[in-house]
Amino acid sequence: MTSPAPEISLEEWHETLLRVRYAETDKMGIVYYANYLIWFELGRTEFCRVRGFSYRDMEENEDAFLVVAESYARYKAPAYYDDELLVRTHITEMRKRSLRFGYEIVRASDGQIIAEGETGHVVTDATGRVRSFPEGYAQRLLAPPIVHSQASGAVVPTEEAPE
Amino acid sequence: MTSPAPEISLEEWHETLLRVRYAETDKMGIVYYANYLIWFELGRTEFCRVRGFSYRDMEENEDAFLVVAESYARYKAPAYYDDELLVRTHITEMRKRSLRFGYEIVRASDGQIIAEGETGHVVTDATGRVRSFPEGYAQRLLAPPIVHSQASGAVVPTEEAPE
Amino acid sequence: MTSPAPEISLEEWHETLLRVRYAETDKMGIVYYANYLIWFELGRTEFCRVRGFSYRDMEENEDAFLVVAESYARYKAPAYYDDELLVRTHITEMRKRSLRFGYEIVRASDGQIIAEGETGHVVTDATGRVRSFPEGYAQRLLAPPIVHSQASGAVVPTEEAPE
Amino acid sequence: MTSPAPEISLEEWHETLLRVRYAETDKMGIVYYANYLIWFELGRTEFCRVRGFSYRDMEENEDAFLVVAESYARYKAPAYYDDELLVRTHITEMRKRSLRFGYEIVRASDGQIIAEGETGHVVTDATGRVRSFPEGYAQRLLAPPIVHSQASGAVVPTEEAPE
Repeated sequence: MTSPAPEISLEEWHETLLRVRYAETDKMGIVYYANYLIWFELGRTEFCRVRGFSYRDMEENEDAFLVVAESYARYKAPAYYDDELLVRTHITEMRKRSLRFGYEIVRASDGQIIAEGETGHVVTDATGRVRSFPEGYAQRLLAPPIVHSQASGAVVPTEEAPE
Repeated sequence: MTSPAPEISLEEWHETLLRVRYAETDKMGIVYYANYLIWFELGRTEFCRVRGFSYRDMEENEDAFLVVAESYARYKAPAYYDDELLVRTHITEMRKRSLRFGYEIVRASDGQIIAEGETGHVVTDATGRVRSFPEGYAQRLLAPPIVHSQASGAVVPTEEAPE
Repeated sequence: MTSPAPEISLEEWHETLLRVRYAETDKMGIVYYANYLIWFELGRTEFCRVRGFSYRDMEENEDAFLVVAESYARYKAPAYYDDELLVRTHITEMRKRSLRFGYEIVRASDGQIIAEGETGHVVTDATGRVRSFPEGYAQRLLAPPIVHSQASGAVVPTEEAPE
Repeated sequence: MTSPAPEISLEEWHETLLRVRYAETDKMGIVYYANYLIWFELGRTEFCRVRGFSYRDMEENEDAFLVVAESYARYKAPAYYDDELLVRTHITEMRKRSLRFGYEIVRASDGQIIAEGETGHVVTDATGRVRSFPEGYAQRLLAPPIVHSQASGAVVPTEEAPE
């Protein structure tokens, strides 16, 4: 662990809301299993945003990519077209050149847990070479959120987090 | 035209907000062109919702499907990962057993028009047989919105639309 | 028209075979409509390959991209999971800095026409600036195929085309 | 274990060939990680086909679905647009009402291992209720292939397997 205070952050789940698209269903009438990995990505993106940075900027300005090395998903109940789902995201492990995220997908209407998962990432530059986190980013990832996130991903500063 | 007052409704655009997902980009660094059709679908779904019904219920309770017969898209400017986009949707034609939707995709940050499109639909039952709209649905589609839509698709009643 | 002998080439359809994936179906039990645009792309890729070049190389070695400016699809009959489909591709228009492809999707088992479509493309460099075709490429696109394509996209030289 | 001779079958890998589609890449220039799960599905479909049955028929005629309960993938090297990849599929565990598949994705041109994975499945009926394999299917899954599969998924009987 390289984080100054991981105990706090690892308990911080970020929640983002999405609605199941028609395209995400399959002939069984439920969400096709590969789409959960897309939603995990969406959870990561919003997890970053509420911590004050855009993952896009990290790629484009810092030449740092969170390349996926592993993914795991456990499908517990089907999700259906037009369901509103919460993607709950947190960091489960943080190292100098890698990190892991954990996820829960929960149906908003009834609290049903739809899926759980985990992804492991390595920090690389654009050429794929492993590198460490750019200055300040590991700290931001482990810090509590400084903005609220709305479903759209639009963010508004929290009152208690002037930064 | 079977609608009582199409002139009014055809000017009613619905706007829904989405954020470009990483999965939706391709190796050119921009959104892959097939994804716009998925966003058009999303626009249709929300267009229905603010008119007081869920397209899912129309399929499941009324045995009526808006099968796509045609799609057209014109790509005017690239969209990028994490862009916030408005999907603007309206009805351009309404008949007894068919309708057409028109779309505009606009980047929220700078108002850039990203794409325009149109889809033509036939109303069918679950077996694919053409049928007319279920009772009341054509009217609802042509009526003004009775609820506001938020980015998440969650809806709240408008003050001026008690219905 | 910049081609030396377009009459010949425009009649040359390329056929490539694919099988419908489970992921490509939706809750109606049929192929979701955005996937046809992905198959059109696949048709274009193989159309190039049998004319002796890889579209990937054209992008990476010649800095020339066939950016999609327009797409049109007409859906005539549903396609189902595990159907074998022929994607028939040809060039319908060729200009100095643009071209158009036409497509037919046909079910192999019964010859049913599933869909028809067209895409319009502009030639650009990696920065998105319009340019003309790289040296020799317009000619290759309009020439008859010099290799046979198998379903996998693997190619074998035709006897009559030593190049 | 319900299989008569699992030792033999568990060593039987099925190989199917695919080519990376443009739509499957992302802005990093490599294949987006969720697509591997789609390819695993493709491997399962062809694994069944060379054992003499279509998974589609199993769903439609036998009311038996291999619902995904778990997925795991380890990404070892990037795959690129137009790469030819082998999806190697085998059964790693077989029980009365469930089974597990293991996968390897290998680049055809250089033998590079791109990814490894595993999926766990439960047998259900169309309503999602757990059931056992339909008569004869567990045996077929564990038996050696009776047909050769081509890249397209078209199959031809093997000489040694008259059935």
